[in-house]
Amino acid sequence: MMKFSKLALVASAALSFPLNAQATPQETARLRDAAMTDSLAWEITEGLTTEIGQRKAGSDAEARARDWAVAKLKALGFANVRVDPFEVPYWERGEATAEIVAPFPQSLTLTALGNSAGTPSKGLKAEVIGFDSLAALSAADPASIKGKIVFVTHRMAPAQDGSPYGPVGAIRRTGPSIASKLGAAAILIRSIGTDKHRNPHTGAQAWAEGAKPIPALALANPDADQLERILKRGQPVTIALNVTAKMAGKRPSGNVIAEVPGRDPNAGIIVVGGHLDSWDLGTGAIDDASGVAITTAAAKRIMDAGQPLRTIRVVWFGSEEIGLFGGIDYREKHGAEKHQLLAESDFGADRVWRFETNVAGAALPAMKPIAAALSPLGIEQNPSNGNASGSDISEVAKLGIPVLELSQDGTRYFDLHHTPDDTLDKIDPAQLRQNVAAWTAMLSVTTNDPTEYGPVAVKK
Amino acid sequence: MMKFSKLALVASAALSFPLNAQATPQETARLRDAAMTDSLAWEITEGLTTEIGQRKAGSDAEARARDWAVAKLKALGFANVRVDPFEVPYWERGEATAEIVAPFPQSLTLTALGNSAGTPSKGLKAEVIGFDSLAALSAADPASIKGKIVFVTHRMAPAQDGSPYGPVGAIRRTGPSIASKLGAAAILIRSIGTDKHRNPHTGAQAWAEGAKPIPALALANPDADQLERILKRGQPVTIALNVTAKMAGKRPSGNVIAEVPGRDPNAGIIVVGGHLDSWDLGTGAIDDASGVAITTAAAKRIMDAGQPLRTIRVVWFGSEEIGLFGGIDYREKHGAEKHQLLAESDFGADRVWRFETNVAGAALPAMKPIAAALSPLGIEQNPSNGNASGSDISEVAKLGIPVLELSQDGTRYFDLHHTPDDTLDKIDPAQLRQNVAAWTAMLSVTTNDPTEYGPVAVKK
Repeated sequence: MMKFSKLALVASAALSFPLNAQATPQETARLRDAAMTDSLAWEITEGLTTEIGQRKAGSDAEARARDWAVAKLKALGFANVRVDPFEVPYWERGEATAEIVAPFPQSLTLTALGNSAGTPSKGLKAEVIGFDSLAALSAADPASIKGKIVFVTHRMAPAQDGSPYGPVGAIRRTGPSIASKLGAAAILIRSIGTDKHRNPHTGAQAWAEGAKPIPALALANPDADQLERILKRGQPVTIALNVTAKMAGKRPSGNVIAEVPGRDPNAGIIVVGGHLDSWDLGTGAIDDASGVAITTAAAKRIMDAGQPLRTIRVVWFGSEEIGLFGGIDYREKHGAEKHQLLAESDFGADRVWRFETNVAGAALPAMKPIAAALSPLGIEQNPSNGNASGSDISEVAKLGIPVLELSQDGTRYFDLHHTPDDTLDKIDPAQLRQNVAAWTAMLSVTTNDPTEYGPVAVKK
Repeated sequence: MMKFSKLALVASAALSFPLNAQATPQETARLRDAAMTDSLAWEITEGLTTEIGQRKAGSDAEARARDWAVAKLKALGFANVRVDPFEVPYWERGEATAEIVAPFPQSLTLTALGNSAGTPSKGLKAEVIGFDSLAALSAADPASIKGKIVFVTHRMAPAQDGSPYGPVGAIRRTGPSIASKLGAAAILIRSIGTDKHRNPHTGAQAWAEGAKPIPALALANPDADQLERILKRGQPVTIALNVTAKMAGKRPSGNVIAEVPGRDPNAGIIVVGGHLDSWDLGTGAIDDASGVAITTAAAKRIMDAGQPLRTIRVVWFGSEEIGLFGGIDYREKHGAEKHQLLAESDFGADRVWRFETNVAGAALPAMKPIAAALSPLGIEQNPSNGNASGSDISEVAKLGIPVLELSQDGTRYFDLHHTPDDTLDKIDPAQLRQNVAAWTAMLSVTTNDPTEYGPVAVKK
């Protein structure tokens, strides 16, 4: 009975809202072009960065940002607006100073990396030993490093696809643990960034098994240049560090979730979003107020155009920066639900230039109308399937759920990433609107197409 | 006898070094073009910014910089290398923090302006009142300002000739005194700069007669944007300031002087140079290591080409930033000597684009060979005589001594001016060499031309 009545319900739904009622190319084009005058993404980005500012994972400001997000998403008319709460380990940045004691007394500008330890309260004074790569550090004789301050430099070139961040970023992600295991007293790295400003780039690093936490800091790029020049003069270089960073227990965080319920609950959920938390140095405009703003504005446009086939779930993830805690919590709480597609915006707000996919081979033909709708925006499709990804959604994607990616131009992203300079003025309203148009076009197609985009790892 | 023998001596000198032995256009062109491969200006700029770093007026670092300068100028073969010492009032920057308490709690990035007072040690909390111009502040009702934190914003456009710095800079130079006289508890100004970075611009301001020193600070431009946005929302805005800036007695400073003695001690001295001190936030690369470097490199080229008719006096002025103390000391100690010409480089190291004069009308024909020698470098002459100036030399110029100016392109100068971002990486070596070529050409003509360039206010 129950089985029969459920089938009847589905059949009935199919009559009123035919499952094959895909958005026509004309309808998608109309929604896309209307989004080129969007003001909501700017309103959200401006509001979040102005009324909250920095939103560090686990901070009071992140909690205020959740309240702000819930109020905003309710006011916009989304359904099922709520917070999924979780706890995160809390790291305090504190203060960090570095003084070259000899041979040329002067201060260096730097900031602590996530999970950095502090120095003893009286500070730490040691000789500096420099390396020009992670490989050189890894190959070093521990006797040459013991008790010293390790400095690792590099050169990171700007790139549209941001690809140097992977290999160069390894210096930040793993350099501190390598230095610690080799006996270093502290580690300074050249900021993982492409700018020439006196604003250091923070970012997460995690202590590897067996690596004792030590002070781990990033020098602003001009200061890394300076330390390189001083080391090249060949005299012993001594630096005095004072760092008050420390771990400080657990703090509340959470994901803010809102929905546009679809016509067919069985058609699968499309998750879109970005992360609500930011690093504490800037106001998190490009990372990632713009990401939640773009995806929310696009979802709102689809909602306002009429109920879609599939449910859109907008997620403003919490505590992304310190270890994808929002993504992990989402997977744990929602991984068993039927997800059709995941897509995240977390690479600034410059124009989308590329569309990438990670779907089942059988679903590739269904990507064509998306690519066709994006093409007038100057967006090309990467013909190689399987490259789409996203930070928070990577945790859910582990379950085998398809991912689409609308890649922003990242040429200047790493000038600003994780620095005090990540502020609203860095957002170009015209490019922000192009993003909303791209996401609107993508959602117009995918929310109304009954195609199964992939193997779904968890089936009911 | 004595008279006769002196005349004989002059006649004899005239035979070996004829007073009218002007540099031929070919010789000047050869020296100019050779300077396009100059490495000395870079060496001085790199050395001073790397081995000393910041050189705040009256600081230990400025004293080390004087020692560095004396050693360098002697090593380069200049004559009469020495320090003219003097004392300056010393101002300590200390720390400055600003927290918006309500309605949107967050930190603002700012720095103290020169001669700023500190807050009480427990800090200062007050409501903010905003103005969009100095005129609006000046016209305000004191009752509306009493006990409040005044905020003055503005818009400063980049310009090749840097001309907006005059009117906009008045906000920094006089705003604090105006606010204090109106009863303000403190003043925040938008940085006097054209960038969008989280690096505030410091700079000098002096308390007017009867103005009680108050905390006077500059917000980084993105933070001024933020405060503007928050004020526009119409709710009362409260800020908590903690500032430890203070005056701290007298400290030693000095001018470093070196010479290329001319063939004719009566032909008048040509003073060239820049200032050795810098603000403390950056390493003083464009302001003004490059200025002393360019002028010294050019003087060295003239020296190496053979003894000029006139003496070149290279002056690395001390304590310019806090009130032209080096210029004042120079005028007091050397104003009575016969100066023929003054020229200073203190506007960065981007290419020279304009040649300006402030000479006697009768000397204008003598400007033509200078303009002709500069033209191949893309430098145009301002046909209006009387506009040339310079910061330190303005004090000596008051005595009626002619001034020449080689104006650098200032389009990006106020992105960096007085910020932490004034570092070596901002110097373009190719444009630096063009500067040296321009100064070499100018000195090649002027050091060998017996023309009297002006009325000389002090005659023996």
